[in-house]
Amino acid sequence: MDIKGFQFSAVEAAIKKPGRKDLALIFSEVPATACAVFTLNRVKAAPVLLSEERIKSGAAQALIVNSGNANACTGDNGLIAARETSLLVAAGLGISDSSVQVSSTGVIGLQMPMERIRAAIPGLIEGLPSGTLDDIAEAIMTTDTFPKLEARSGKAGGISYTVAGIAKGAGMIMPNMATMLSFIITDAAIEPAFLQQSFRRSVDNSFNSITVDGDMSTNDTCLMLANGLAGNPSIVAATPEAEEFDSLLNDVLLSLAKQIVRDGEGATKFVEVRVSGARENADARKVAMAIANSSLVKTAFYGQDANWGRIFAAAGYSGADVDPSRLSLRFDDVFMARNGVFSGGDAEARGTEILKKREFTVTIDLGLGDGSATVYTSDLSHEYVSINADYRT
Amino acid sequence: MDIKGFQFSAVEAAIKKPGRKDLALIFSEVPATACAVFTLNRVKAAPVLLSEERIKSGAAQALIVNSGNANACTGDNGLIAARETSLLVAAGLGISDSSVQVSSTGVIGLQMPMERIRAAIPGLIEGLPSGTLDDIAEAIMTTDTFPKLEARSGKAGGISYTVAGIAKGAGMIMPNMATMLSFIITDAAIEPAFLQQSFRRSVDNSFNSITVDGDMSTNDTCLMLANGLAGNPSIVAATPEAEEFDSLLNDVLLSLAKQIVRDGEGATKFVEVRVSGARENADARKVAMAIANSSLVKTAFYGQDANWGRIFAAAGYSGADVDPSRLSLRFDDVFMARNGVFSGGDAEARGTEILKKREFTVTIDLGLGDGSATVYTSDLSHEYVSINADYRT
Repeated sequence: MDIKGFQFSAVEAAIKKPGRKDLALIFSEVPATACAVFTLNRVKAAPVLLSEERIKSGAAQALIVNSGNANACTGDNGLIAARETSLLVAAGLGISDSSVQVSSTGVIGLQMPMERIRAAIPGLIEGLPSGTLDDIAEAIMTTDTFPKLEARSGKAGGISYTVAGIAKGAGMIMPNMATMLSFIITDAAIEPAFLQQSFRRSVDNSFNSITVDGDMSTNDTCLMLANGLAGNPSIVAATPEAEEFDSLLNDVLLSLAKQIVRDGEGATKFVEVRVSGARENADARKVAMAIANSSLVKTAFYGQDANWGRIFAAAGYSGADVDPSRLSLRFDDVFMARNGVFSGGDAEARGTEILKKREFTVTIDLGLGDGSATVYTSDLSHEYVSINADYRT
Repeated sequence: MDIKGFQFSAVEAAIKKPGRKDLALIFSEVPATACAVFTLNRVKAAPVLLSEERIKSGAAQALIVNSGNANACTGDNGLIAARETSLLVAAGLGISDSSVQVSSTGVIGLQMPMERIRAAIPGLIEGLPSGTLDDIAEAIMTTDTFPKLEARSGKAGGISYTVAGIAKGAGMIMPNMATMLSFIITDAAIEPAFLQQSFRRSVDNSFNSITVDGDMSTNDTCLMLANGLAGNPSIVAATPEAEEFDSLLNDVLLSLAKQIVRDGEGATKFVEVRVSGARENADARKVAMAIANSSLVKTAFYGQDANWGRIFAAAGYSGADVDPSRLSLRFDDVFMARNGVFSGGDAEARGTEILKKREFTVTIDLGLGDGSATVYTSDLSHEYVSINADYRT
């Protein structure tokens, strides 16, 4: 992957326990245009508070991120820790601390082990020229079982550029950025207002359209840096180049989002929930999210039980306008119900076959209008319970 | 239990499979004052649609209820089945079908096996004089592991009366009456408007304050019948007798609600979530419900992990006004966090000891006002997943 002017490094700081790299740095050789979205939780981690304030400038040059400790519910000491971390990075890199973004993920409520962070930062900075984006993707994992990366290349004015991204997710994945981190970098030159717009749209189509357990974390962050070092003429809105960039960015984020769902805690199924025929898109989204978050629906997926009635029940309590007599439902191409009632015939047997697959689509038509939405979700398994019952130990 | 003028019967109709009583009848020897609350799900089962219409008269004399089939998502045939069932009962009892309430619980989406219902009704009616309320409590069970009953006696004008209730619950328990059935009977004479008022208040304090998995069913019903055969002077609002009745009714419903949570699918813990210091009661309720419904919080309870950070995170995304720096949290009498941060000392060890108990209280103070709410919930266990993955088989 050729992405100009970004350097990477990851080291072991033994933040939660020794044995793995848990502190990582992304550095852009020049200040980058930056935008980000953060958790909507009212209880925000200290690094989120700090980074949210700093991103208002529209620029950033470095990101330091750790796993093992969320630095959330840590009060003033947490903020002091996040600020000191950014100061140490800034000093080591010779840049302003206001251009350093800080991100954390891990256990909530414990103070950051600052003596270990302080000790690790010099080695982190020294490692910069030789690290890779893959190293960062591994260092930010918590209960993830595999690192999540995606990259795409495009052209603007005859010059090639790359959009690359990494993410961590696993449990606690929900719309509105609930517990996940994702960092996207590109060497393309892009007009800042268009970048912001394209980024927000892509986030809505990807990270805000997935759910694992309906919880929303204190630390969610999706940060994008564009440093312009590819040397292309700046991409501006409403041009073919803008359209191409938009599409690439969307692809990268959607791929990362789907990887997060596939790696949902204990997930054995990847399910695409498509809702059509709603009075409006917002209604379709309510229905899709209610289905995708229902513990009863998700345990039925796990059990490979073609229990379409639970899906209708979830649609019914979603808050959307629903007419039971107009509902239809398919598993992939098998109609389980039409006009609100069971399709009969061999639908049960055929539907059960679909649910045995690792990936399938649930399509619900509400029969009321043109509103539609798509959401991605996983099943709810024994393993999910095991992981989350024992997470801190 | 001495409750005048009510008769009971339960038989095996083999609705889902043979081997247990699954069809039950409650009959009042005279028309009773009746009130009910039903599911708010837009997808309502056929018997709910029928009963909701009939209860508008304010009177009922019989209830027929089955387990094994919810008669939901069954379209017009479902409504025809519910109506025919009530007609057969009415004919057998010599009363009007408009005074027969119908209730169902079980699998969604299958048509009722009417030939078996038709065949069973004569025996059901014949069994009336000899049955007990306990028989009904057993016949309505689905994944419940024990029948749920409660009764209290009071006096009005020197005359004794009884309030008795049964319920079924287990999974899919949620505020707003989500999947449960409960039937309350009393031989007290009560002014109808006061009964309605007292009933609604008790339902809010009990069934609308519990949650197992956040799902909401198509069939929830809580029905109350008061036949006046105790012979007391009618209880009217704003009297000591009204206060006593109110308190007894509240006790019966709260006891049944707590039994439902204790018997939540796979539950190993019974947790009372108390929220205080909210700007208003509605905010306190949002926080309590977000905590009580969080899969991450509930798996931590199951794992006996004193992970108070997840509880703060749930408060933060509840939608209520929350100031992280003012939050405090206790497990029973052990402070885990004050002013938003960990209490330190031996709080971790002491908190973990509390979570090893079968029942404990989580108390969160928001530090913002006088609003408060209490909600009852269970943990999320491996067993919950097993039960719901395999429910239909």
